[in-house]
Amino acid sequence: MPPHVEIISVGNELLIGKIVNTNSYWIAKRVTTLGMKVRRITTVGDDVEEISNAIQEALQRRPRFIITTGGLGPTFDDKTLEGLARGLGRGLRVHEQALKMIEEKYRKYVEEGKIREFDLTAPRLKMANLPEGAEPLPNPVGTAPGVMVRHEGTTIIALPGVPSEMKAIFEEFVAPLIREAAGNVEFYEASLYVVGVPESEVAPLIDQTMHDNPHVYIKSHPKGAEPVPRLELHFSTTAESPQVARQRVSRALIQLSELVQAKGGKVKPIQR
Amino acid sequence: MPPHVEIISVGNELLIGKIVNTNSYWIAKRVTTLGMKVRRITTVGDDVEEISNAIQEALQRRPRFIITTGGLGPTFDDKTLEGLARGLGRGLRVHEQALKMIEEKYRKYVEEGKIREFDLTAPRLKMANLPEGAEPLPNPVGTAPGVMVRHEGTTIIALPGVPSEMKAIFEEFVAPLIREAAGNVEFYEASLYVVGVPESEVAPLIDQTMHDNPHVYIKSHPKGAEPVPRLELHFSTTAESPQVARQRVSRALIQLSELVQAKGGKVKPIQR
Repeated sequence: MPPHVEIISVGNELLIGKIVNTNSYWIAKRVTTLGMKVRRITTVGDDVEEISNAIQEALQRRPRFIITTGGLGPTFDDKTLEGLARGLGRGLRVHEQALKMIEEKYRKYVEEGKIREFDLTAPRLKMANLPEGAEPLPNPVGTAPGVMVRHEGTTIIALPGVPSEMKAIFEEFVAPLIREAAGNVEFYEASLYVVGVPESEVAPLIDQTMHDNPHVYIKSHPKGAEPVPRLELHFSTTAESPQVARQRVSRALIQLSELVQAKGGKVKPIQR
Repeated sequence: MPPHVEIISVGNELLIGKIVNTNSYWIAKRVTTLGMKVRRITTVGDDVEEISNAIQEALQRRPRFIITTGGLGPTFDDKTLEGLARGLGRGLRVHEQALKMIEEKYRKYVEEGKIREFDLTAPRLKMANLPEGAEPLPNPVGTAPGVMVRHEGTTIIALPGVPSEMKAIFEEFVAPLIREAAGNVEFYEASLYVVGVPESEVAPLIDQTMHDNPHVYIKSHPKGAEPVPRLELHFSTTAESPQVARQRVSRALIQLSELVQAKGGKVKPIQR
């Protein structure tokens, strides 16, 4: 199996259906575009043991990266670093550089008049309490640093749950690592609507096209119930160059379009 | 640990960041409202072994229910029933009643002129191929039936990935089972904005309020970076009656509001 990525989302708000997990969606999309495969996305609550279990289970599948989001802030229910430390069988200790990052942020907030005075309270100190061997990743948008720690062949990266902070740290520190680990490949995708042929009749045509185009992955998405008035077909591939990736998808798209038309169906490219 | 629910989403489109996992969000919200706790949400691809592993791992945590979505359709990459059968160590066989449901749907489609003729092709037959001991759940909206199978203390329910079909089968067959298993309790939630106090100063006030209101769960969500101009506090509980649930949340909400105001912060209830 090629090197893969696992995503672990932490937060009770995801388990009670208070918010949609758009962070995982965003990370999955970015990882895919960078040329690496997301194998599993796991969501657990704000609980040290649940987080620790999810980390250990993911490690057993030997991913190249584990990316967590959520649970890095100052409140009592921010438990990702404690869960991560337990999952790795390591202790937590105050990291001097992380502490400096946090102190500087609060001093700046005081200068800017956003808070009255800076006091290194226990909740604030907690954000600098990293698993042994971990490094902080500067947070250009908020206070809690991201955290990176290596364990055997896996690099574990803990990102905040606030989307703007998560994305900023991802783009600056995580994206370059993934791109390099993926061998600087290119991802390409395209979609097509099929009208007038039910999904069950399109299925064998997809099989045939994927057989003839082994690097291209095709998936059908019924829009509405069977027999579908409209079926979305999604084509994707990764290749060494954007030209090759685009060519592969085009070839498969043309072949499948012709097969569908021969069955009396209509096709329409989808612009994104 | 009280009885819990696990959700397993199946679909490569979720792992490549093509679509947001709104099905899991919807199910988590409904399960919570029905009074039961979602412990974990797992997303895996269209792969028999990945699905089978996710089922087996969830079973080890002994949930009352496992709800899967996606992968029940007729195409080659709809693999949930095969994964479920393997995860349970059971065979797959054509279920007469499921076959009847599917045949009736296609006959109706022919009558309505939606398809030309009905042919029981292999992809269509596949939707009636259930794990041994499983029962089909009629799909009032689409073609593929839902599937229910019991294993030791766990009821596993496989729902389609098309949201309208998933929701229809959930409301008709799954919601009553969960409500009963939860003991017909009531869920209540409320939210509050806090302005002018950073999250790290609100944290100990939340601790105190949760300590004094042991049935109420409170979580803070920073809106924007620390030091937050706005912090959302979410209160939730379940109780035997709607009155008790509402009363518990109100009491905690009033206490925390007073604590925040004593720190110089402002509070504002959130209308949903």
